[in-house]
Amino acid sequence: MTYRMVDLIQKKRDGGIFDEAEINWMIENYVTGNVPDYQMAALAMAIYFKGMTTEETAALTMAMVHSGKEFDLSAIPGIKVDKHSTGGVGDKVTLILAPLVASFGVPVAKMSGRGLGHTGGTLDKLESIPGFKFEKTEAAFIEQVQKTGIAVIGQSDELVKADKLLYALRDVTATVDIIPLIASSVMSKKIAAGSDAILLDVTVGDGAFMKTVEDARLLARTMVDLGKSVGRETVAVITNMSQPLGYAVGNRNEMTEAVKTLQGQGPQAFREFIAELAQIMLELAGKTQSIPEILAHLDNGLAYEKFVAMIEAQEGDPRAYENLTAPLKTKHQVEIRATQSGFIHEEKALGIGIVAMKLGAGRATKNDQIDFEAGVTLAKKVGDAVTEGDLIATLYSNQPITAELISEFNDSLVISDEEHHPKEILEIVR
Amino acid sequence: MTYRMVDLIQKKRDGGIFDEAEINWMIENYVTGNVPDYQMAALAMAIYFKGMTTEETAALTMAMVHSGKEFDLSAIPGIKVDKHSTGGVGDKVTLILAPLVASFGVPVAKMSGRGLGHTGGTLDKLESIPGFKFEKTEAAFIEQVQKTGIAVIGQSDELVKADKLLYALRDVTATVDIIPLIASSVMSKKIAAGSDAILLDVTVGDGAFMKTVEDARLLARTMVDLGKSVGRETVAVITNMSQPLGYAVGNRNEMTEAVKTLQGQGPQAFREFIAELAQIMLELAGKTQSIPEILAHLDNGLAYEKFVAMIEAQEGDPRAYENLTAPLKTKHQVEIRATQSGFIHEEKALGIGIVAMKLGAGRATKNDQIDFEAGVTLAKKVGDAVTEGDLIATLYSNQPITAELISEFNDSLVISDEEHHPKEILEIVR
Repeated sequence: MTYRMVDLIQKKRDGGIFDEAEINWMIENYVTGNVPDYQMAALAMAIYFKGMTTEETAALTMAMVHSGKEFDLSAIPGIKVDKHSTGGVGDKVTLILAPLVASFGVPVAKMSGRGLGHTGGTLDKLESIPGFKFEKTEAAFIEQVQKTGIAVIGQSDELVKADKLLYALRDVTATVDIIPLIASSVMSKKIAAGSDAILLDVTVGDGAFMKTVEDARLLARTMVDLGKSVGRETVAVITNMSQPLGYAVGNRNEMTEAVKTLQGQGPQAFREFIAELAQIMLELAGKTQSIPEILAHLDNGLAYEKFVAMIEAQEGDPRAYENLTAPLKTKHQVEIRATQSGFIHEEKALGIGIVAMKLGAGRATKNDQIDFEAGVTLAKKVGDAVTEGDLIATLYSNQPITAELISEFNDSLVISDEEHHPKEILEIVR
Repeated sequence: MTYRMVDLIQKKRDGGIFDEAEINWMIENYVTGNVPDYQMAALAMAIYFKGMTTEETAALTMAMVHSGKEFDLSAIPGIKVDKHSTGGVGDKVTLILAPLVASFGVPVAKMSGRGLGHTGGTLDKLESIPGFKFEKTEAAFIEQVQKTGIAVIGQSDELVKADKLLYALRDVTATVDIIPLIASSVMSKKIAAGSDAILLDVTVGDGAFMKTVEDARLLARTMVDLGKSVGRETVAVITNMSQPLGYAVGNRNEMTEAVKTLQGQGPQAFREFIAELAQIMLELAGKTQSIPEILAHLDNGLAYEKFVAMIEAQEGDPRAYENLTAPLKTKHQVEIRATQSGFIHEEKALGIGIVAMKLGAGRATKNDQIDFEAGVTLAKKVGDAVTEGDLIATLYSNQPITAELISEFNDSLVISDEEHHPKEILEIVR
């Protein structure tokens, strides 16, 4: 069957529902270049206004999966579990969660991405370890998981070709924030990457894509239904991204926080958050573990052992990862101190993420270079009591830190008389 | 001032209203290629859903006018009046109206286009006169109007560059039927063409762009307000395009009908329709003429004289135009006769326009060749009484006429007991 793209655009514009054949035709022809960007852009805008049904979204997701290489992890015994976050500030979860889950004998074969804008990427953080390699062939990737039980590599360029094209187009045509398109972008990559089960971390708040719990719930529900409809067990947690995750926002300082947590020295709330996510991932792999049993693997060195095995298998410098907990050594450092007593009421994730990016920790555009030592390290988090003069945060950069940037950080900070402790996991969607 | 196109797309998507500077920036950068087609396509779709205000449409129109050459007709004395039709089946109005108005001493300096799909174009009809030339420099165009009082030439390629790009893009992105974009496309060309006053023929019905009187009225009102807001007196007539205009649909047969009408032998209803349009054009030029006074110029040869002057000034073969009233000489001809007695209830313009195109009279795509002798000539029109066996129409083609095509013609024809006479001019919008 063949179609005219203009007719399909008009169909969606007028509120029609695509069948699978129409969606397959569009994606196949978009990837080959027969459907040009301008037609896909008009369609994306029509979808913004008219939406897509669950069936359409599932068909789109599978059409996207088939547009590139599909990994076959069946040579790895056991249930392989993957994890994805929709993006956060200070999000070093994968660095801890992957070895923690692997330490229970569940194989973790994960592909990660880089950060852009105010959100960081797992690859950038791992790249602060000299020598660490992300590029692996499918065979080498599988072999590493078979030997060590864990691998975190860069997303293959051959994976989901349609998504690369579509994502770049959506970015410049004001069609990013469309739930069915976000869902199919995330899920197509997870499905093509080959794991059997998927844990989704859907972040919500001013530092996340989803600004409201309602939107996050809708996205989570869409993705969980999508995963199930194609035979992948999927669970989503909706997590609070109103303040950064943990205390460190950057690259090497996040590695420090991750390593300390893997060595049993992590902040208690953060340890518990990680343990809850690990419990769901283990459950998806068919293992029931209590929170204390999981925390024990952070304290007894088993999780850290997996982390070291991964770094070594991926050629990271052993001395370097032993020094990951050393203090940051940037040319410029500015301490932010409390100007009044009270409780930390807000530490806005978006604002702090942008400050960290401007300090050198992130990229404004894809080609920017990262300064691995730059970033923000918090000393206090929302809900903590402070007395005037207490250290709240330290800004690190190898560039001079301007008064404007300090003022930008302060704009993200609210101290008040009111004590509130935001929850980290807001909801679980199964 | 500079902008990011993605921000402007999002502004419209979210219901925002552009200012003049934003619109000028977009059109300037679209024409130079800095704003790519995919961004313009996303914007057009956002406009489909969110619309544009009168002020936005006026700013867009003038930005488009400035994107190309603007004709200066001030060297021609008097009020120059232009006329535009939004497209019809059997629409040979310009061929008669232009010389008729010119015969009253009102200068007519007109640019016309070609036909596409089921609607014909004035240029194609004139091209059935051997030797006739449409291409003129601005100076030669003005000189001809100064000498003969009339010129109908092809639309300059340099006119409204943004419209060419935008129209081609809208055609393939399901963003054609957007009233502010149609209005700015039509009016930018009329304004750039330099006349002082404009008569718009907004067709409505199944053979027209606008399917309902409400839509036609909205388009007419938008264009009339637009014209006035930039200092061009503008009047729109909303005309019925439920059946073809006159009896001939094609090229040479339409020339025959036009010439006969210019020689005083036109069908009465058609003569009166033309006279009403002429009365409005003359009024726009400051001349008050009664309908009988206008009809007199069709009967006394003055209008035909102007027509001949124009053909000669544009190098048309004099013997050829004298033979324009000869019968069509195609290899194949099929007579359509009444299968029952009653009244012609419907002769659908869209269906008959498509049949004429398939007989060879029009183009399905821009590069198709036209067969000037091909077409449909009606013997009866809606409201006429017929007896079984009466001739209703003749199909002319140099290709064999298939049974399917005859059946397609019959699908456009309804004979019933009910007698109705559709009006030709439905409304006048000033």
